[in-house]
This record gives sequence, C-alpha cells and structure tokens, in this order.
Amino acid sequence: AKKYAFNVSPPAVLFLGFILLIAIGSLLLKLPFATHAETSWLQSVFTATSAVTVTGLVILDTGTHFTLFGQIVIALLIQIGGLSFMTFAIVAALSLGTKLGIGQQMIAQEAFNQTSLEKVAHTAKYVLIYSLFIELIGFIALTVIWLNDLGFGKAAYHAFFYTISSFNNAGFALNSNSLMHYFDNLSVNLVITALFIIGGIGFLVLIDIKTQKKWRKLSVNSKIVLISTLIINLFGFVLIWILEAGNPATLGQLSIADQAIASWFQAVTPRTAGFNTLAIEELTNATTTLMILLMFIGGGSLSTASGLKIGTFVVLIMATYTFLRRRDDVVILQRTIPQQQVMKALALAIVSITIIFIGIFILTAIEKAPFIDIVFEVVSALSTVGLSRGLTAQLSMGGEILIIFMMIVGRVGPLTFAYFLATPKKKHIKYANADIQVG
Amino acid sequence: AKKYAFNVSPPAVLFLGFILLIAIGSLLLKLPFATHAETSWLQSVFTATSAVTVTGLVILDTGTHFTLFGQIVIALLIQIGGLSFMTFAIVAALSLGTKLGIGQQMIAQEAFNQTSLEKVAHTAKYVLIYSLFIELIGFIALTVIWLNDLGFGKAAYHAFFYTISSFNNAGFALNSNSLMHYFDNLSVNLVITALFIIGGIGFLVLIDIKTQKKWRKLSVNSKIVLISTLIINLFGFVLIWILEAGNPATLGQLSIADQAIASWFQAVTPRTAGFNTLAIEELTNATTTLMILLMFIGGGSLSTASGLKIGTFVVLIMATYTFLRRRDDVVILQRTIPQQQVMKALALAIVSITIIFIGIFILTAIEKAPFIDIVFEVVSALSTVGLSRGLTAQLSMGGEILIIFMMIVGRVGPLTFAYFLATPKKKHIKYANADIQVG
Ligand SMILES: [K+]
Ligand SMILES: [K+]
Repeated sequence: AKKYAFNVSPPAVLFLGFILLIAIGSLLLKLPFATHAETSWLQSVFTATSAVTVTGLVILDTGTHFTLFGQIVIALLIQIGGLSFMTFAIVAALSLGTKLGIGQQMIAQEAFNQTSLEKVAHTAKYVLIYSLFIELIGFIALTVIWLNDLGFGKAAYHAFFYTISSFNNAGFALNSNSLMHYFDNLSVNLVITALFIIGGIGFLVLIDIKTQKKWRKLSVNSKIVLISTLIINLFGFVLIWILEAGNPATLGQLSIADQAIASWFQAVTPRTAGFNTLAIEELTNATTTLMILLMFIGGGSLSTASGLKIGTFVVLIMATYTFLRRRDDVVILQRTIPQQQVMKALALAIVSITIIFIGIFILTAIEKAPFIDIVFEVVSALSTVGLSRGLTAQLSMGGEILIIFMMIVGRVGPLTFAYFLATPKKKHIKYANADIQVG
Repeated sequence: AKKYAFNVSPPAVLFLGFILLIAIGSLLLKLPFATHAETSWLQSVFTATSAVTVTGLVILDTGTHFTLFGQIVIALLIQIGGLSFMTFAIVAALSLGTKLGIGQQMIAQEAFNQTSLEKVAHTAKYVLIYSLFIELIGFIALTVIWLNDLGFGKAAYHAFFYTISSFNNAGFALNSNSLMHYFDNLSVNLVITALFIIGGIGFLVLIDIKTQKKWRKLSVNSKIVLISTLIINLFGFVLIWILEAGNPATLGQLSIADQAIASWFQAVTPRTAGFNTLAIEELTNATTTLMILLMFIGGGSLSTASGLKIGTFVVLIMATYTFLRRRDDVVILQRTIPQQQVMKALALAIVSITIIFIGIFILTAIEKAPFIDIVFEVVSALSTVGLSRGLTAQLSMGGEILIIFMMIVGRVGPLTFAYFLATPKKKHIKYANADIQVG
C-alpha cells in the first residue's frame, strides 16, 4: 500500500468536501443580505451546487437577484470548487502513480510513492500558484479592456468575476444573457476563451508545455489532447458557422468578421465553459445536436472542465478503429494504450450514457418541454457545461433536484473512476470462457 | 485457412446479395401492375429496401398503394431478405468457428472446419426448414383466427402476409395503421408476438432449447439471451403501462385487460418487429424515450431481428460492472467473456452510436420536424424496427436516401463485424505503453 498518499478513499474525501462546500454555500446564499428578493432553500442549494460544480446553470439571475455579497459568495464557491477539485484530482492522480512524462522536474512522480504529505502539499501549492498566476493575467487583461466603458471599480469587479468564472469553466455571468452583449468584442472573446481553454485543457498538459517548450518533446498524452482539442474546436467552428449563417436570429444579420468571432466562441464554449454570445434557444436543431456532442465530449482530464474528457473520447475512437483493423493493441502515435485504460474509457462512456438516458427519461416524464431542450439540459448538467435552451428556469421541483444530482455526479464521477482504476484488484476465481453472441 | 467455408469475403457476398435483391425488388415494384398509382423510382427503392432489410418503414401504404402482386413481391422480399440473411449469418458464424454448445448433434461444428460445402448446405437447409415449419404453424393459427371475420381466402392471404412479416421481424402491415385494429384481440396479439419473439431470439438459442430441453443444460449464451429478453420485455411492459395509463390517446380509455395486452405488444415490438397497436405519435415523450432504448438494444444475434443485439448489450453492461468492481475478467454466469468479444461489443456500440448521431445531425439539418421524431426515426431505421412517429411519410428526398442507407447498414453491418472478429490478425510492431488521461 506504499503507493497511496491517503488513508481514506480520495473520492469519499472529495465527495464529502463537495457536499460540505455546497452546504456552506447554500447557507451563505440564503442569508438575507445575499439576495435582493426571497430565495427558497432549493433555489440556494441549486445555485450553490451549480457554482461548486462549476456548471453555470441558473434558476436565479446572478446579476440582479444576488447582492454584491451573494455574487462574491458565488465567485468564491466557483474558485474553491473549481481549483480545489482540479488540485485534488491532480494530487490523487499523481499519488496513484500517473506519470507526468516530464522526468524529475518540478513535480517528481517518485515523490508520491513515498506517501509524503509534504510532497503532496508541494504539488497542491504549485498547482494553485500556477492557476492563480494565469487568473491574475486574465484579471488584468479584462480590467484593462473594460476600464473605459465601466470605470475602474466596476471593470475590476467584472474582471474578477469573469476571470474566476472563465478559468474554472463555470459559465456564470453577471448578465442574464451571458456574454451576448460582447458577441462582437474581439478582445473580450479572446481573453475569455483563452482562459477557459487553458483551464480546461488539463494541468499536466500545461506543465508539459511549460517544461518541454518544443512540440516533439511533449508527451503522447499532451500531443493527443492538443491535436484533438484543435481538431474538435475547428470542426465545431466551421460547422456552426455553416449551420447558423442563414439563421437571422443568430449569425444571419452579422458581418463576416462578427460571424467568425461568434462561431468560434459558440464552438469552444460547450467544452465545458458554458458561456454564450448567441441565443442558445434560437440555434438551429442541427447546431444544437452538434453542441450536445461537444458538451458530451467535454474538456481535458485533470482540468477545470468536465464531460467524458477528450482522452476518453480519443481512446474509444481508437479502440474501435483497432478492432475494425483487426489489430490487438490500441495504438496512438506509436504508443500502446493499456487494456485497462480502454476498459476504463468503455466503463466511463457506458456509465455516462446510462446516466444521461435515465436523466432524459425522468425529465420527459415530469417536465412539459420539447425533447431537444431536455436532452440538451441533461447533457449540459452532467458535463457541467451550463448552457440551456431555457429549460432550467422552468424546471419543476423534481426537475431541479434531478439537475442538482446530475451536476454533482458529473463533477465528482470521473475522479471516482480514476480511483477505481488505480486501486488494487482482488484475486478471483478464473472461469472458463463463454461464447456470448455479440452483434 | 482451413477454417473458412468461403473463398470470398462473406460480408461482401451478403452486401452484394442485398443490393441485388433490392434492385430486383425495386424493378418488380416499379411494374405498372404492382401499384394502383404512380410510383417513383425512389419510392420503389425505398419500399424494396425496407422489405429486404425487414425494417417496415413505409412511404406508401402497403395495403392500398400496392396491388396483390405488389404485396406478394413485398412479402417475398421480406422472406428472402429475412431468412436468407439469418441463414447466411448462421452459416458464416459456424464456418468461422462459433460453438453451438450442443455437442455433435444436428449441426456438428467440426463439420465446418472441413470447408465442406455439403455441410454448409446441410445447415442452411436445416435453418430454412426449421423456420418454414414455425411459419407454417403461425400461418395456420392466424388463418383459423381470421376465418370467421374475413372468410377463407382473405384470412389465408392475411395470415400468409402477417406470418412472413412477423417471423422475419419486418413489421409490414396490410393496414395503414398497422395492427391497431387488433389492439384488444388476445389471439392475434399472442400469435404475432410469439412469431416475432421466436424469430428474433436467435437461431442458436432455438436449436439449443430444442436439443437440450432442460434449463440447466442450456448454454450460457442461451441462458443470457433468454433471461435478458424476459427482463427487458417485462421492464418495458410495466413502464409503458405506467407511463401510458393516464394518456387518453393510447391506454387511457381501455379496460385493464386491454391495457395489459396493448402494453405487452408495444413493449415487445420495438425489438425489432415494428408493428404497433397503439398510435406511436400519441405516446408520451417518456414512453418514446424508453422505446428508443428498446429499439437500440434490438433482438438476438443470428436471428431475424436487428439492433445492437441483446448479447452485445449484456456484454457492455457486464464489462462496465467488472471495471467498477475492479476485476480483470468479465464474468457472466461463471463464464469469462473473452477480451476480444468485449472489444467487439465496444466497437459495435461506438459505431452504432456514431452512425445514429450522424443520421440525427443530417436529418435535423435537412428536415423540419421535432427532434424526438428524428431521433426515433433514425434509431428505428438503423435497428430496422420500422416504427415511426410519422416522419417517414414527410421525408424529403435527401431524408429518404439517408433512411435507405441506414436500413442497409443496420441490417448488413453486424455480420461484417462478426466477420472482422474471426478473420486472422496481422502481426504488428509492438509499441511501448502510453499514459493517456482517461476520465
Ligand atoms: K460550466
Ligand atoms: K422491423
């Protein structure tokens, strides 16, 4: 058992930590000076859960329903929920033997094999400092951008809120229509998308880039995540542009340059930032279908993003390709993916799809809403994206409880899986092979 | 290569056979005396494809648009498409080394290791005779049931058509509203559901039952297929009853007994018979969601049914369970599922979901229809179920071509997979392991 840095199960710690944070957040948001109007317990729990799980689905308008105090509580819940989750996940992954692929630098993997709490604390500190540094740059950039329009105080406050919300892929906004006001503002679009893409790409990849500097020196994992992210984002960008160019309610009335900016923003935000500069409920069904896929895939592992994860998605695609090519080993960039990783990806996909199916089934039974809105809402909640076609605000009490459940499972679930992967297996009886008909 | 009974690739033979059969069927259905009204080439190709792939999606009403000649052509296309596919699949599976699990009886597995065309012909003959015998019983039963109402000639003709359509899980009906007229007729419901459940359970399971007679002697595959079929059917039955009991457009106005009959029928028909006794477009969204799952799962392997297949579904569930229990071997009923079978199930699921996603995406882009109708239609076509919420009749030309494509892929696809599984693997370079972040 020398491989473990914890004596208690990491997923249990994380889950209890989340529940505690949500409880504290709910209490704070229920305080009379946190809101301008009456707030029910369910509403404050929903809001706290959405913030802690960095989802961004809202039933109360963040900018008008909550006071400055309430908004700062939300921002802090996002920051603590987002960063502590990422840090915890990284520490757990490293302590469970995940290779960094960067030799003996800053974070020495061997350290974690010694169950040294000191080293764990060191990693955690490093991840936090690195994150705060990126946030600081984002904060300064946004303050400068908004200075003229909003004045220093308001610009700084908005920059504070949106930096936290972006880097943590939370998607909370101070405006009821998210960032639609800034659909044609290139600097706001660039800074915000940069923040959530960096936050969502995965910390190990960031470290790898920072350490190795050159492309060919990067680990296979980093290369795959970077290439896939680029392909998926460009793919979404082009398709959304094509599908919405003729839609007068979204891109139709815009200049070519503005169409490009808005298409880019709307293509990258489903994975899993959750901001929008176009009206989500006005998007065509084809774009909505595409976005459901993008939300399902999600961002990078060990990041502030959620979803199936880009690595899982690539492993599944490559495992299928391997089978169709009649090969045994799943090979990516001349590296073999261990069978155990393939089985993990399979299990993650089946569990995710099962939860999504059950969520859709229950919501169709209890809510009066178009099917597409329900599918969109459920995937958005489980992948902690936070985009909605308007269903969130109309949910019944049962629907709100279901979405709360989805957000927590969507955020805590993957780490639980990572834990399962790394814990020792029990020995079992070896059974003879069966010949089950498949296909 | 002594394991092969064919010198040409079985999937290629099957695919070309299907295309040839569809071409002949289209020509015959285009003949002036095949229809009462003008029929376009696309319409006749669509109808022939739907019949040959035993799907049952129709853009022309079988009973009123087609003459007796046309209807008989459709019935023969179903019979040839359904039975020849099943026979071919069984022969291919056996020749590729699938164990029957029934020792040296009727169909000796060893025989197929000798590439003996004689033995293959023997198996094919056996499968066909066995099938025709079951159909004969169904035909007699339905003729007797309908004798009083329709008179001998019409009763026999209806029995002929519905027996073929049922046993082959084709779902074609002589009435535009399928079997809604018989929603409360217990004998019609029992005979028709028995025919398509038997046809869809898988030939190897039928042989096993016929040979072993006792439950404990059945192969693990047979037990799993039978138990899962029972569980899924009962599960669907209870849920549909609960979900539709309050729906005045479906079960709401019926007596308890009729509700039971109709719920049973509508629970078993999505896998993948495709008849209906309730109005599909009037079902609640929750029932529709459930049916999408049932259609996706489909029937048994090496049967007249299509879909992902019950064995594939069970293997995926058990592989996920195995991962979550931190075990290495996927074990069902004290038998280990070989890793290769798990990978096949994974590949089948990923390919199916990908095709369904692309189908939904294209249809949302080119058709003006509610999202739920599109999802339902695409899954129905790929699993060759044939149920529709009304979209089939409204499809654009592009939509019709897409659905034709889906039906062919849905029917021919699984055999191609089976073939891939059994063909020899090439040797490849062994690469070092990569550490891709999953989840
Ligand atoms: K989010
Ligand atoms: K069918």
